[in-house]
Amino acid sequence: VELRGDPDIPVEGVAAIDQAKSGDISFLANPRYRRYLASTGASAVVVHPDEADVCTTAALVASNPYLVFARIAQYLNPPAPTSAGIHPTAWIHPDAVVDSTAAIGPRAVVEAGARIGPRARIGSGALIGAAVSAGADSMIGANVTINEGVVIGERVVLHPGVVLGADGFGFANDQGRWVKVPQVGSVRLGNDVDIGANTTVDRGAMGDTVIEDGVKLDNLIQIGHNVRIGAHTAIAACTAVAGSVTIGRRCMIGGAVAINGHITIADGVTITGMTAVMHSIREPGVYSSGTPMALNHQWRKNAARFNQLDDLFRRLKALQQEFITLKRDCGRKDD
Amino acid sequence: VELRGDPDIPVEGVAAIDQAKSGDISFLANPRYRRYLASTGASAVVVHPDEADVCTTAALVASNPYLVFARIAQYLNPPAPTSAGIHPTAWIHPDAVVDSTAAIGPRAVVEAGARIGPRARIGSGALIGAAVSAGADSMIGANVTINEGVVIGERVVLHPGVVLGADGFGFANDQGRWVKVPQVGSVRLGNDVDIGANTTVDRGAMGDTVIEDGVKLDNLIQIGHNVRIGAHTAIAACTAVAGSVTIGRRCMIGGAVAINGHITIADGVTITGMTAVMHSIREPGVYSSGTPMALNHQWRKNAARFNQLDDLFRRLKALQQEFITLKRDCGRKDD
Amino acid sequence: VELRGDPDIPVEGVAAIDQAKSGDISFLANPRYRRYLASTGASAVVVHPDEADVCTTAALVASNPYLVFARIAQYLNPPAPTSAGIHPTAWIHPDAVVDSTAAIGPRAVVEAGARIGPRARIGSGALIGAAVSAGADSMIGANVTINEGVVIGERVVLHPGVVLGADGFGFANDQGRWVKVPQVGSVRLGNDVDIGANTTVDRGAMGDTVIEDGVKLDNLIQIGHNVRIGAHTAIAACTAVAGSVTIGRRCMIGGAVAINGHITIADGVTITGMTAVMHSIREPGVYSSGTPMALNHQWRKNAARFNQLDDLFRRLKALQQEFITLKRDCGRKDD
Repeated sequence: VELRGDPDIPVEGVAAIDQAKSGDISFLANPRYRRYLASTGASAVVVHPDEADVCTTAALVASNPYLVFARIAQYLNPPAPTSAGIHPTAWIHPDAVVDSTAAIGPRAVVEAGARIGPRARIGSGALIGAAVSAGADSMIGANVTINEGVVIGERVVLHPGVVLGADGFGFANDQGRWVKVPQVGSVRLGNDVDIGANTTVDRGAMGDTVIEDGVKLDNLIQIGHNVRIGAHTAIAACTAVAGSVTIGRRCMIGGAVAINGHITIADGVTITGMTAVMHSIREPGVYSSGTPMALNHQWRKNAARFNQLDDLFRRLKALQQEFITLKRDCGRKDD
Repeated sequence: VELRGDPDIPVEGVAAIDQAKSGDISFLANPRYRRYLASTGASAVVVHPDEADVCTTAALVASNPYLVFARIAQYLNPPAPTSAGIHPTAWIHPDAVVDSTAAIGPRAVVEAGARIGPRARIGSGALIGAAVSAGADSMIGANVTINEGVVIGERVVLHPGVVLGADGFGFANDQGRWVKVPQVGSVRLGNDVDIGANTTVDRGAMGDTVIEDGVKLDNLIQIGHNVRIGAHTAIAACTAVAGSVTIGRRCMIGGAVAINGHITIADGVTITGMTAVMHSIREPGVYSSGTPMALNHQWRKNAARFNQLDDLFRRLKALQQEFITLKRDCGRKDD
Repeated sequence: VELRGDPDIPVEGVAAIDQAKSGDISFLANPRYRRYLASTGASAVVVHPDEADVCTTAALVASNPYLVFARIAQYLNPPAPTSAGIHPTAWIHPDAVVDSTAAIGPRAVVEAGARIGPRARIGSGALIGAAVSAGADSMIGANVTINEGVVIGERVVLHPGVVLGADGFGFANDQGRWVKVPQVGSVRLGNDVDIGANTTVDRGAMGDTVIEDGVKLDNLIQIGHNVRIGAHTAIAACTAVAGSVTIGRRCMIGGAVAINGHITIADGVTITGMTAVMHSIREPGVYSSGTPMALNHQWRKNAARFNQLDDLFRRLKALQQEFITLKRDCGRKDD
């Protein structure tokens, strides 16, 4: 990181490049926002070397401006201090073990055999089920539900409304009626996992659902039973991962994606938003499905043709054959 | 609105046209239900002038029957009265300000610095976070979570399980590991906003996520950080709106739509269900994507062709060229 | 069911075929896992007659191995015993009726007029709204919200975060502003219904939303107002069912499906994952929509052609016509 401009400029806050004012530091990572670089009110901007010359403010020049900005933003916005201790309205089972440095919020419930680690924070109304283990520095949001036996690593963040360890969707069919298959596995989260609001992670049918270190899940995601998500993979909101899927390490999965059950996705795969993943992906790369948006009256015409596609291919092939015949016949007449 | 039939017919309740009985008032807005008009048991029906002549019951004739019916239904079904006051099991931080006409339900939590306006109702188990402001006549459902600093207008309705102000999904990548970007913005809701059950609205990374007056969001919707939704826009269930999207005023967005990050949607746009919106929409109109449903064995044949589409176009173009050549050659032989 | 091998082998637990060890019983239903049959550490495996000969362990041979396994797993994993009674931190309205054999968890709230049946279990932080009826042996998870008047059958399971009876999404438009249509219906669940975590079922606008006996819903599903789901239908996660949809009995609906409002789906229909159901389905069968996943750079080429499909059909048809003309002309020259 290289500094250009006055090193004594005071910086107190962070702001988007198009909204920043004096005293703010901002960043430029998305080329979409380059046009704001000349006019920004920021006192300093973190930029890529390619943009450094057009930056009119003080600049921190870095090959990964967003990362440098993230660290500055963390420095300028430390987590609010929380007083350790158990709120008088929380309910802690006498057989639970709560570290003396942990903070348990109003109306939280901690069941028998649960263990709450050092400096962990449990939000208002959260349920920490029986025999759950929440690691050091974990932050459990308000109204989160963690069912019995779930194991949570250190520095894990669960946003409000998350449900960990609900039963997987397992039923056998008996002449048209569904018979429940007991879900006797659990859920294990590694360290530094972050799970977004109202996301659900089901317990394993047999064996555990596993989310490895550093995985980041956005809001309203469904993770089915016995899924394994490799370390440092990130998944955007509203994605559905069916049961027994194995996702590799350092994958990036877009929003509203649907992943079919019992398939495997290799390390380093990127899947764009709203893709239907019906088969395993063996090689890294960027994968997609879907059709482009259009005005509805145009889309209707083209979509109606989709159901004739195979017929179209056959008609084209037949025409190609007929054409070859005609051409040969025509050629013959030349002789 | 014009009345046809006996003005003294008593009407006590509302019912669907195919289920109504004597004493009910119903309406006809969807042509799908026109066939019930002759046989309905309703005492009166609100109809469009086009249907008035075939209506055999007393009729209120109006150009927008659903709107007239809505007002009648509101009149016949006033909100249940709620006694003001704080339930003995609620927990209110001593630094919170709760209007004396507000009603705080069992197990609700109101944190330091929060302000609850006149006649606001807070549901059972809801968390009103620190420094949150909930406007007059707002109705916060059970088990809602509102994180610190969120600002809510007047007459806002939040259905159960809504999460406002969880962190946006912002991480920078440091050699394969994710580094959190602090989310220091907030969420601001205008007046008359209605948000469905278990919908999540993330706080801004920098600057706020903003939902303007009169916006209606259905259940299980994700609104990413720094989204702005223009006044009177309605969005149906399970739609995912990625970060930094700007949606115009009076848009209508269907269910299960996915909207890509950092794009802009003009005022007055309609998007049909399950559309993938990958680019900005600059003009009003109705937009769609996707393919039509078919029997699976037919769909498989056609879907397999999708991956050969570009090849098909090239083959057709080549054949067209060859055809022109052959036609010229054939023509030449005529000479 | 036929037993092959030593009938005295002790079996204590259940495990997946690739993870089982001595003392475990496993099963083989998905051909994907057949390769583990020779090497499994299980003491016994439930198999189909077709696999019995290659099974090297003790075997239970059954035509539906998964069903037999489900019953064995239920036998080996009985539900944890729960002590009847009301937790001291629960809040029960004096006008509620709680059966003496029911178990009400910490921080649960039971409102006026609610009835909790024999052996029912109410989880931590759940809200049982006014006049709700929860049948015998129902299990309501933590932080569930059941709004007023909802009726729940016997042996119903609601996983954490479920919301029943929030208002349907009903608004009439008044010159660009939305006017709420009061949602005066309710929700009725039959017996043996199972609803996954954070799923939402809206109350009817007029008349009730009805979920019949034995229906199984996975996590994060939206069921709109006035939907009716026929007995023993199963729906996978993240599916959106719009208002006034009627779904038949014994249907199987995949994950991330979107079903348009006001349509009817026949009994015995299967819909594969991520299908957009825009029209009624009158006949049983398997239905699908969507396009296959591909590498992004290939997908882009093919997807771009989608918007030219109708034009392609017209060009092919024109070429076919021209070809016929040319062929006729060529033929004429032969004369």
